[in-house]
Amino acid sequence: MSLLAHWVNGASGADIPVSDRGFSFGDSLFETFRIHDGRALLWERHRARLERGLLALGIDCDRQRIADQLDQALHWLSHEGHDHSAARLTVSRGPAERGYRGGAGPATVVLQCYDASPWPPLPAPVQAILCETRLADQPLLAGLKHGNRLEQVLAGRELDAKGAQEGLLCDGQGNLVCALAANIFLIQGGRLFTPPIERCGVAGTVRGLLIDELAAAAGIGLEITRLRPADLANADELFLSNSLQGIRSVSACEGHSFTSTRWGDTLREHLYRACDSAS
Amino acid sequence: MSLLAHWVNGASGADIPVSDRGFSFGDSLFETFRIHDGRALLWERHRARLERGLLALGIDCDRQRIADQLDQALHWLSHEGHDHSAARLTVSRGPAERGYRGGAGPATVVLQCYDASPWPPLPAPVQAILCETRLADQPLLAGLKHGNRLEQVLAGRELDAKGAQEGLLCDGQGNLVCALAANIFLIQGGRLFTPPIERCGVAGTVRGLLIDELAAAAGIGLEITRLRPADLANADELFLSNSLQGIRSVSACEGHSFTSTRWGDTLREHLYRACDSAS
Repeated sequence: MSLLAHWVNGASGADIPVSDRGFSFGDSLFETFRIHDGRALLWERHRARLERGLLALGIDCDRQRIADQLDQALHWLSHEGHDHSAARLTVSRGPAERGYRGGAGPATVVLQCYDASPWPPLPAPVQAILCETRLADQPLLAGLKHGNRLEQVLAGRELDAKGAQEGLLCDGQGNLVCALAANIFLIQGGRLFTPPIERCGVAGTVRGLLIDELAAAAGIGLEITRLRPADLANADELFLSNSLQGIRSVSACEGHSFTSTRWGDTLREHLYRACDSAS
Repeated sequence: MSLLAHWVNGASGADIPVSDRGFSFGDSLFETFRIHDGRALLWERHRARLERGLLALGIDCDRQRIADQLDQALHWLSHEGHDHSAARLTVSRGPAERGYRGGAGPATVVLQCYDASPWPPLPAPVQAILCETRLADQPLLAGLKHGNRLEQVLAGRELDAKGAQEGLLCDGQGNLVCALAANIFLIQGGRLFTPPIERCGVAGTVRGLLIDELAAAAGIGLEITRLRPADLANADELFLSNSLQGIRSVSACEGHSFTSTRWGDTLREHLYRACDSAS
């Protein structure tokens, strides 16, 4: 993905002050989403998660600034003829005095746009490993897409070192939580299972849509439940979900092969339809 | 503390690129230290902790750049006649492509200098509360002074909301770990106790000096052991250590009063002497 444009606080710009708490402490939130034909896909879900984060971290940011920044990018992309792109919206607490308790603000609003392909009709299944990197239990931050991502950085480095395409991550107790930048869904006996996101992990927007709407629309029961790596042995199918890549089936993980992509393919069609029809 | 000067990659500057992974993911390390009379106090300990962090996170940064950046600041401070200052050195993985696994580099080296008072001869004891904010167990990052500091941000907000001067933080199992930005030491029956920093918390440089040298020099036995909030009830004395404030006694915490500051005062004298005599 190549960068198309970026804005900082409404101005086309590439720099932020070094005193920004986003840089000092990762004191920020972000959303990554697709923009198709001038529309931010699943924006209402992204906006709602960002809102939860702003409240949880107590970041004071005029919501209109966020809406205006998104509009500015949408207009620019349409004007420049970029039909498909990916965007990262970041809201940090802003420039601050020294120290954790140093006064800060106003919030910094950043939008970065990248060139992207359309949704792939049938993406090739990926191979995954089980990462040794574990996610720490932190209920105060679980579910949020916040700017403290060193665990993902370490897991990404582990995947690179092992030459792995994708990785599944467990919490400290050995429960499956997610993939590097995606949620996980396992199919067994015609039912869909996904882990709770209560103590770590990010509550993905596509995950939310699958739980709230897509599973029912496709006629498959869904259960949010603890999953262990051992459950992979009995699974018929495994797939990953996120905002940029949609739904990707997993072909193999830790010696277990998954030949079926039936439910991943079905739910992907529902996802594309839902994204086409609603915001 | 007011800002005196800042440098980004050797140039006097206030901005970093918005694509810097320090801003995107808190993918960085930092050191906060005192500079007295042209000398960075306890620098060898700060340098060693930074080195551990660079290796743990796999951040590729020419060590000479770090040494040169520090020298540049030390010369400038001496030339401008700033005898006492505080500095934050930050090393991030640098500007990068999108995503956790996006290629990055070269590393960004930032140095920020602030005006500071000399060591206080006898700082007033502080009152502390026990924070509700807990620190997550993450052995991969424990001990390091990395750029993922949302837990400290949340704890700082908790202290502000409660009008508290200082706070003690526990891990998820309820073991005492540290204060907001300091390590903790408890004295009971003429012995010094401090918690292990193995699963969370920052391994402070003054803590390291206390363990390695100062306790023995002052003639007090020291034990690294698990501490619970209940242990405060039996403690004769409690003090906090960090690089900027040195050693501060705690006068009260959660209904327990500590009238003695004997060992805090004694060890502070040893700290000042050690800082005066060595790097």
